[in-house]
Amino acid sequence: MSETLKVGLAGLGTVGVGVLKILEGNKDLIRQRCGRALEVTVVHARDKDKDRGIDLGAYRWADTVDDFFAHDDIDILVEMIGGSEGPAFDLVSKAVEKGVHVVTANKALLAEHGFEIASKADISGALLMFEAAVAGGIPIVKTLREGLAANNISSVHGILNGTCNYILTEMQETGRDFEDVLAEAQALGYAESDPHFDVDGIDAAHKTVLLGAIAFGVRPNMKDITIDGIRNITALDFMFADELGYAIKLIGQVKLNEDGSLYQSVEPCLIPAENTIAAVNGVLNAVSVHGDYIGNTMSVGPGAGQEATASSIVADLVDIARGVKGPSFGIPAKELQTMKVAEPESVVAKFYVRFLVQDKPGVFADIATIMRDHDVSMEAILQRGDETSSPVPIVLTTHEVSQDKIMQAIALIQNKLTLSSAPVLFKIENII
Amino acid sequence: MSETLKVGLAGLGTVGVGVLKILEGNKDLIRQRCGRALEVTVVHARDKDKDRGIDLGAYRWADTVDDFFAHDDIDILVEMIGGSEGPAFDLVSKAVEKGVHVVTANKALLAEHGFEIASKADISGALLMFEAAVAGGIPIVKTLREGLAANNISSVHGILNGTCNYILTEMQETGRDFEDVLAEAQALGYAESDPHFDVDGIDAAHKTVLLGAIAFGVRPNMKDITIDGIRNITALDFMFADELGYAIKLIGQVKLNEDGSLYQSVEPCLIPAENTIAAVNGVLNAVSVHGDYIGNTMSVGPGAGQEATASSIVADLVDIARGVKGPSFGIPAKELQTMKVAEPESVVAKFYVRFLVQDKPGVFADIATIMRDHDVSMEAILQRGDETSSPVPIVLTTHEVSQDKIMQAIALIQNKLTLSSAPVLFKIENII
Repeated sequence: MSETLKVGLAGLGTVGVGVLKILEGNKDLIRQRCGRALEVTVVHARDKDKDRGIDLGAYRWADTVDDFFAHDDIDILVEMIGGSEGPAFDLVSKAVEKGVHVVTANKALLAEHGFEIASKADISGALLMFEAAVAGGIPIVKTLREGLAANNISSVHGILNGTCNYILTEMQETGRDFEDVLAEAQALGYAESDPHFDVDGIDAAHKTVLLGAIAFGVRPNMKDITIDGIRNITALDFMFADELGYAIKLIGQVKLNEDGSLYQSVEPCLIPAENTIAAVNGVLNAVSVHGDYIGNTMSVGPGAGQEATASSIVADLVDIARGVKGPSFGIPAKELQTMKVAEPESVVAKFYVRFLVQDKPGVFADIATIMRDHDVSMEAILQRGDETSSPVPIVLTTHEVSQDKIMQAIALIQNKLTLSSAPVLFKIENII
Repeated sequence: MSETLKVGLAGLGTVGVGVLKILEGNKDLIRQRCGRALEVTVVHARDKDKDRGIDLGAYRWADTVDDFFAHDDIDILVEMIGGSEGPAFDLVSKAVEKGVHVVTANKALLAEHGFEIASKADISGALLMFEAAVAGGIPIVKTLREGLAANNISSVHGILNGTCNYILTEMQETGRDFEDVLAEAQALGYAESDPHFDVDGIDAAHKTVLLGAIAFGVRPNMKDITIDGIRNITALDFMFADELGYAIKLIGQVKLNEDGSLYQSVEPCLIPAENTIAAVNGVLNAVSVHGDYIGNTMSVGPGAGQEATASSIVADLVDIARGVKGPSFGIPAKELQTMKVAEPESVVAKFYVRFLVQDKPGVFADIATIMRDHDVSMEAILQRGDETSSPVPIVLTTHEVSQDKIMQAIALIQNKLTLSSAPVLFKIENII
C-alpha cells in the first residue's frame, strides 16, 4: 500500500483544473490520508495550447485515447470530458476493460451507459467511482452506497440542479417570471447560453437515475424516468404557493410504490414550507433519503462549482488509494435488476392545479363539480384578481388522488371552460 | 472475500437488539451488499435471563471477556455495552490487541481512550469503526473521514444531543421553562432520570471530540474541550432570541483559529433563524462542516434511537465485509497531533448577554458605558417588562469581540449594578 498511485486526467475544463489545484494545494494532507502518494502522470484534453492558468509541463500529454493508455503509466483515469458518447465513452470503456480504475464526474455517461460500463469494470476488477457526478460536493453516493447500506430504501428526493434551484429561489424571492430570471442567471454565469439540459430537467434526471440505481439496485436507464422542467412555473404559482404555505422546487425522486413498481421522475413540486429541504436555496443541492431503519436523513451542500466538484473527485481518489473495494452501484452489475416502471398516471399524490380562465359566473362550481365527479377531493381553492379582469387564475390543491383521475378531470375542465393557457399540474411532496 | 464474517455482540440493550433485528430483517439485502454473509456467533450481556423479546438460542453466550474470546470464533466485536471504563474498555482493548475488528457505538470510551485503542488497532491491523458513536444514524464519521478527505477542514458545528435539542425545541415552541420541559421529556422517555450526561453537555462533548479528531487529525482528549450545558437557558432567552431573529441550540464545535490553536466546545449558541441548522428541531441531529474546497455542507437525521443507531453499526459491518481499510481517525494514530488548545477567553465571537437587574434609572447608560470602555461594540440592546416591575431583563448582542473583554465588562457590571441572578452569556454562531 505504499507505492505511488499514478493518475491520468482527461478533460481540463474548470473541474479538471480544480482537481489539479486540490492535489497540489492539499498535497501533504492528501498523502497522509491516503497513506501513499497520488501523482498525476498524463493529461488529455481537446486543445493542448489553451491557457488554463496552470503549468502542465510536468505531465505527459496524450492526444488520443490510444495515446492515453500507450505507456502503461496510469492506475486511475479521472474522466472530466463530459458527454454520454464520443471520447468520454471511449476512454472510460477502454479503462475499465484494461482494469484501470475510473473516477468520473460524468452523469450523462453513467445514466446512459452505466450498466454496461459497470459490468465491464466488475469483470476486470476496475473500480468505477462517481461521487462528483451527483450533487457536486455532497458525498451522497457514498452515503447511499455505504452509510445507509443497512437499509431498504423506500424513497430518495433531491434538489439536484443548482441552476434551476437558483432560478426558482430568485423567482420566489423577487416575484419575477422565469424568462426574466433565466436571462439574469445567464448573464451571471449561473446558466448556460443553451439552458436546455438544466431547465428542462435532463441534468437532474441523469443524477436521479444514478441515485435510483444505488438506492434500489436497479440498472440505470433514462427510459424509466419521467422528466418535466421548470419552464411552466410562473410568478403566479409562487404567489399562490407562498399563500398556501409551500415552496416550489425541482425535485428528482425515486420512490417504491406499494405494487412493487418504481417511480422515477424529475418534476417541479410544491414542498411544505416547514420541510427542511424547502429552505435549501440558491445554487445549493440537497438529497433526502428514507430507509426502513434510518428513517429520514438529508444532506445539503454545493451541487456544482470547480472546487466542490473537484473535492468529490479527489475523495474518490483517496478512497481508491486507501484500498476501497466494491462494485460501482453497491452490488455487482449483474445483480442490478430491471424493476417494473410505475406509470406516471398511476402515481398517487396530492396535487396543485392552476387554471387561467376567461372569467364568467359559475366557473368555480363547474370546476368543483367535475373534480367531485372524478373523486378528486379538494383541500383548498383560491382565486385572485378582481372580478372584471380576465383571464383569472384559479388554483386548487387536492388530497391524495391518482394522477390519471386528476388528469381526466382537468381534460374535461379544459373542454368545458375557456382557458387562456394550458392548465398547470404540480405534485405536492412532503419530504423532510 | 466469500467466507462468512463472524460477529460477536457485546451489550444487548436497545441498540444491541436493534442490530440483531436489522441483520435478520434485511438479511438478503445485507448479504448482497456485503458480497458475503454476516453471522452473529457469540453474544454477551450482563444478564443472561432478561427477556429481550428475541430468541438468543442460536448464539453462544459468553459470560466474561475471556469467555468471549475463548473460541476464536469472531472476526468482529460489536461493542454496545457503553461506559468509558470497565467491561467495554476491557473487551475493546482485548479485541484490538488480538486483531479482532471493533465496531462500537461507545462515544465515552473513544473520547476518553480513543488514541490508546486506535494505536493498538493500528499495530494489530484491526479496524476500529464508530459511525454509531456520533450523531446516531447520520453517516457523519464516513462523510468526514472519507467524503471530505480532499479538504482542510476549518470548522465543524453540530447539534449532537437529541435530548437537549428536544428540550430546546419544546422551550422555543411553547415558551415554557427548562425544568418544566425536562420533567416532561423524562416522563416521555426522551430524557434519562439522571439527565446529567445529556443536559450538561457531556454526551455532546464526547461526540464533538471524536469529530474534531477526524476533522483535524488531533488526538481525542476530553481535557481540551470547554463544556457548558443548557440548564441556564430560560424562557426569557427564547423570547429575546426570537425577537432578535435567532434560534437557541446546544452546539458542539471544533474550530481552527487564526493563531493555529483549536477551539473545542459544547455550549448553547444563538443561531440566525435563516441558517438551515436553526430549523433542525426535536430529537434530530445535524452536523455542518466547512472545508477549504467543499465550502459548507450539512447532514441532518436521527441522532439516536434503536433503529437509526443500529443502522450505523450495520453500515460499519458492511464496510468491513466489503474490505474497507484505513485507520480509525482517518490517519494512523501515531500521526494524530496534539494541537494548541484555544483559551476560551481568547475566542472572538459575537455574543448575547442577558442581565436581570433591579431596575433603577440609568442602568442602560451604566451598561452601555462599561461596554464601550471595554471596546465591546453593541449590535442591539433590549429591555422588556414594565418600568415598575423588578427584576427587569436587559439583553444585548455584540459585534465580534474577544470573550475575555466581554467577560471583564460583565464582571464590572456585576459589581456596579444590583443583579437578581448571574448574567447569562451565549455565543452567536453563523453556521449554514
